[in-house]
Amino acid sequence: MHRLPFDEVHAQLAAALRNLGFTEPRASLSARLFAETTRDGVYSHGVNRFQRFVAMIRNGSVDPAAEPRVVSHFGALERWDGARGPGNLNAHAAMARAIALSREQGIGCVALANTNHWMRGGTYGWQAADAGAIGICWTNTMPNVPPWGGLDAAIGNNPLVIAVPRAAGNVVLDIAMSQFSYGALESYSKRGEPLPVDGGFDAEGKLTRDPAAIEATQRLLPIGYWKGSGLAVMLDLIAAMLAAGNATHQIAADPLRESNLSQVFVAMQPAALGDDALVAQIPDAIVASLHRSKPAHPDRPVRYPGENALCLREENMRLGLPIDPAVWSAICALAANH
Amino acid sequence: MHRLPFDEVHAQLAAALRNLGFTEPRASLSARLFAETTRDGVYSHGVNRFQRFVAMIRNGSVDPAAEPRVVSHFGALERWDGARGPGNLNAHAAMARAIALSREQGIGCVALANTNHWMRGGTYGWQAADAGAIGICWTNTMPNVPPWGGLDAAIGNNPLVIAVPRAAGNVVLDIAMSQFSYGALESYSKRGEPLPVDGGFDAEGKLTRDPAAIEATQRLLPIGYWKGSGLAVMLDLIAAMLAAGNATHQIAADPLRESNLSQVFVAMQPAALGDDALVAQIPDAIVASLHRSKPAHPDRPVRYPGENALCLREENMRLGLPIDPAVWSAICALAANH
Repeated sequence: MHRLPFDEVHAQLAAALRNLGFTEPRASLSARLFAETTRDGVYSHGVNRFQRFVAMIRNGSVDPAAEPRVVSHFGALERWDGARGPGNLNAHAAMARAIALSREQGIGCVALANTNHWMRGGTYGWQAADAGAIGICWTNTMPNVPPWGGLDAAIGNNPLVIAVPRAAGNVVLDIAMSQFSYGALESYSKRGEPLPVDGGFDAEGKLTRDPAAIEATQRLLPIGYWKGSGLAVMLDLIAAMLAAGNATHQIAADPLRESNLSQVFVAMQPAALGDDALVAQIPDAIVASLHRSKPAHPDRPVRYPGENALCLREENMRLGLPIDPAVWSAICALAANH
Repeated sequence: MHRLPFDEVHAQLAAALRNLGFTEPRASLSARLFAETTRDGVYSHGVNRFQRFVAMIRNGSVDPAAEPRVVSHFGALERWDGARGPGNLNAHAAMARAIALSREQGIGCVALANTNHWMRGGTYGWQAADAGAIGICWTNTMPNVPPWGGLDAAIGNNPLVIAVPRAAGNVVLDIAMSQFSYGALESYSKRGEPLPVDGGFDAEGKLTRDPAAIEATQRLLPIGYWKGSGLAVMLDLIAAMLAAGNATHQIAADPLRESNLSQVFVAMQPAALGDDALVAQIPDAIVASLHRSKPAHPDRPVRYPGENALCLREENMRLGLPIDPAVWSAICALAANH
């Protein structure tokens, strides 16, 4: 594994995106979001994801020049069309608009239709919290999980992100509605390790920790069984209705053609309601209450959502971002090629 | 089990509440919410819960005369003080205000501090969806679930409700962040049945389906393990911050003294953004996609969230609400006594 400075990774990704038809500011922002994802330790959706993103530009799923535009608005609620532009740029613009609306109205909501995979969802949670807002956002996906009680994929794993600003480190949750992703199953499978908890069904319809058995049945488990299945349905409903966009059942079930997604971005301003000093200490007190909880394993203290990301961010900025040499060669070739 | 007409149950509950100091309209509304909960098949939080509610009025946890009032507001966001009034009346008023705000601003949010247990959370989801709005609401609770990686209860099971209007039957999800409640464990335990899936940890720290073992360790499992644990933390954070109210760690860990909760109510108006005809057919199409999913058990088709409630509602209105005779006697005594 290479260890490369953040700025070098950012510069090469930006050069590659300019070569793919991105304007300079859009190339720089998109590259930064990819590099920050790797910086924060979400390796599956950062630099390692870049080549798939490029493949989706080349097959026409992602239009590098398309910019999102507002379609309709009513008070603090807006509907946008993502025009199949780059998913991370569309999502960043939508959350920025939700934050601006929340500054005017206390709460703001932007629903985005016809967009693409937003890469790391947590990015837009950190964006809101870094701006002092509570952020809630989610996306639908192609059908990739069976609903509870069903055999075939009819719901998406529809990641949900919730972020709260905190001076000593934002609290950011970024969870998909399946217990594990196919990427996670593959990692365990390659290492020959069982999953830490049940992740799906085997060929006999029994719950299993065997990643290969789940890859064979394609029966991933929703979080909390019937509960996460229901939550995925609700997130899909709200995203499609507010955005007047596609629902999961309308999205191509092909990772390289998974486009025209629907997403929702909400920002809220607790400080707008007064009692700022009281409100600002609430996250610290809640984090402290978690840290006081007696750990099940003495050497593994209870952590708050986002705590691990901050540790990895510090380490990766100090040592350099860990980048697979083959991935880096491919990116350098894209950056050099005209 | 008695089978009693809805109107008779409603009338007796209302009479009991008038005897406990509720004004006529408030007694009638609170009684209706209890009766509707039993009507919809959520037996744990309807009529069966009434005596505990009365006990909390008598021990001073619930003030029957207290009415919620707005503390501060900014645009579409409001902060209310529940003044330890009846939890279902406070929650109903807060969702009504969120719906009114959403009619003015597309989205509205009311955060409520110092309130009491809202009984069935789904009530306020149905309320929003019946009014044509998308509703999202949640509550924090006393600490009753260990966070992921911890041994002692530091998070609440913080129920989350999401509802979407649909002409042929609203879609309503009502889930706590623990896989099972203590009430559910007790039911399985009494029947001598194992849980259908793992529900917590046994004395050796292993996941188990044995309800008695979990009652002994008090180590309930969050939905999706680390994911539901994180979700409970985020819901608590947002509720306490927006309401400037208590967080879970500040709430008395005693079911009869669990008061001064913080809650959030959000309503959204997809119809305000236009394309009404398109948007109105989205829920039907999503429900149809679920119904098309091949069931794992041929006689158990996949259901959408809320589908079961509608079936039970129809049955209970036709046959009468099923009421335990001992519970009914106690309610009749409260209704007669002056």
